[in-house]
Amino acid sequence: MSQVIINDNEVDIVIGALHSNLTPFMNEWKSIFSRFHLIIVKDPALKEELQIPEGFSADVYTNSEIERVVGSSTSIRFSGYACRYFGFLVSKKKYVVCIDDDCVPAKDDAGNVVDAVAQHIVNLKTPATPFFFNTLYDPFRKGADFVRGYPFSLRSGVDCALSCGLWLNLADLDAPTQALKPTQRNSRYVDAVLTVPTRAMLPVSGINIAFNRELVGPALVPALVLAGEGKLRWETVEDIWCGLCVKIVCDHLSLGVKSGLPYVWRNERGNAIDSLKKEWEGVKLMEDVVPFFQSVKLPQSATTAEDCVIEMAKSVKEQLGKVDPMFLKAADAMAEWVKLWKSVGSA
Amino acid sequence: MSQVIINDNEVDIVIGALHSNLTPFMNEWKSIFSRFHLIIVKDPALKEELQIPEGFSADVYTNSEIERVVGSSTSIRFSGYACRYFGFLVSKKKYVVCIDDDCVPAKDDAGNVVDAVAQHIVNLKTPATPFFFNTLYDPFRKGADFVRGYPFSLRSGVDCALSCGLWLNLADLDAPTQALKPTQRNSRYVDAVLTVPTRAMLPVSGINIAFNRELVGPALVPALVLAGEGKLRWETVEDIWCGLCVKIVCDHLSLGVKSGLPYVWRNERGNAIDSLKKEWEGVKLMEDVVPFFQSVKLPQSATTAEDCVIEMAKSVKEQLGKVDPMFLKAADAMAEWVKLWKSVGSA
Repeated sequence: MSQVIINDNEVDIVIGALHSNLTPFMNEWKSIFSRFHLIIVKDPALKEELQIPEGFSADVYTNSEIERVVGSSTSIRFSGYACRYFGFLVSKKKYVVCIDDDCVPAKDDAGNVVDAVAQHIVNLKTPATPFFFNTLYDPFRKGADFVRGYPFSLRSGVDCALSCGLWLNLADLDAPTQALKPTQRNSRYVDAVLTVPTRAMLPVSGINIAFNRELVGPALVPALVLAGEGKLRWETVEDIWCGLCVKIVCDHLSLGVKSGLPYVWRNERGNAIDSLKKEWEGVKLMEDVVPFFQSVKLPQSATTAEDCVIEMAKSVKEQLGKVDPMFLKAADAMAEWVKLWKSVGSA
Repeated sequence: MSQVIINDNEVDIVIGALHSNLTPFMNEWKSIFSRFHLIIVKDPALKEELQIPEGFSADVYTNSEIERVVGSSTSIRFSGYACRYFGFLVSKKKYVVCIDDDCVPAKDDAGNVVDAVAQHIVNLKTPATPFFFNTLYDPFRKGADFVRGYPFSLRSGVDCALSCGLWLNLADLDAPTQALKPTQRNSRYVDAVLTVPTRAMLPVSGINIAFNRELVGPALVPALVLAGEGKLRWETVEDIWCGLCVKIVCDHLSLGVKSGLPYVWRNERGNAIDSLKKEWEGVKLMEDVVPFFQSVKLPQSATTAEDCVIEMAKSVKEQLGKVDPMFLKAADAMAEWVKLWKSVGSA
């Protein structure tokens, strides 16, 4: 089961460029990325010219391409980390892998460089098992299996739509936690992949993910923008919102979400204490966001990711709109995103 | 958070003796077990005298003690692996740790002997987080924390009631799987503990577990006995049934169940192919058992583990009784177990 064949032509690697000099980042990833097609989307707020080394098959998108495809009169903002969503939109591949530009390949405990792309694709190509928890972790991994008592009728699993990787060195903490524990670093390499059970919500981090674009692409939506959003991960919640949307869609459509391997090594960037002013806003919002997603129900008539996002947008407007106008904007962005996805897809 | 103080007086180690010579087993565990009180329950079907080495504080219970406490006219059977449940009944401690007598201490990847008792008690004494999934695994572990996006209101967690450990060497597969993969051994030490999310069901294995007896003791019930039940793990489902009961109780009472560390090293015993005739029965039953537990609802009036087991017994009788008379017997045993638990507790 673990002998998955990875076809170069079915994978796009999407990089949101928040910094102009991508050379060190891309050279670190060269042995892993160079066989695949890359979509590099430049943060529209970035003024300097991008520096991209030789040796990659890459399409680069800047603000002029974004405006040409999307137009400028839109409620969707492709600034900061959200620029990568433009890459999701224009990709034509089945699988998209997306890694932040402050991450380099990790090493496992034996010192081997982790091929994060290969691990993500294995996660997506092997079934997920959201309906019953397997204590032996991913049953489709070499040397693993289903534990005694696991119903045989559930062992074929379902398609995996989202693979969430993890982080060594700097874990994805929020700014308050990082500020409280300035020296804390994640050094534990947990050698496991597991399916997050159905109806369990999780905070997906956009740092190191991959997804099946055909199954859930339209659910990876850049919707929730903080008023004081910044250019550091802990100053954003756009990926958390997006991840909750994807999980709801997966639960509704009987698809799976996996978490665990692959790890990337995350370099340090920014000062958590400087970010605290901005981040509290996102932290507070979660107290309303999580109960909403834990209770949202989609109608049986929603049979595609597009349908599901449209239905969720309606519920967001009705239930969260009164809490904060940011949620009204998020609902508008979700509805518009689906339109955009369809128009780009049919173009 | 990981600096948990373990009080020797709050832990009982319960050993079900299925084999007469416990000397090798207990000597392997000596450095870990000897500071705690042991409850050894001899399988009533075992004819030979028990051999127990010096150097332990142990109470040994045989069939005559069982009959004195329980009586002989009962629907509960304390034979085979189920003998350990008598130990759960007579323990007076807050925490019970229970390890099969074919397991010895495991070593972690650095070669250190794993103190399974200490790890179980840490799991039970630190909070569980069943209402939102933390991608960084146990947030209360040293070096770990909650990931960005985890609601602060859920970070205090809830009491952990059940800790499910894992197995190196021989994993807890069912007989068909083991027979199909006779050479498969589990060599992957996954250095993680996680809370199994609320409403996700799991197949708890009784090989290596610990629980908070005050919180959920009555839910660890020896109820489902297979017609062809044997003396090998893959010939039983008594622990799977019990684990599903505990998980339902935990979900209903807002308690947590953790899975992962500690590992034990499981030695080989028995021939899977010989067991296949018996095991198919248990494997087939799971197709009815799991959907039942996934849909069972307990009334709000059930506020203790005792109440919950009584209510579950009623539902088992109503919904599963018609499927197989084994389930009627299980329902009777559950109701009787609660009576017994109360009478022993008040004695």
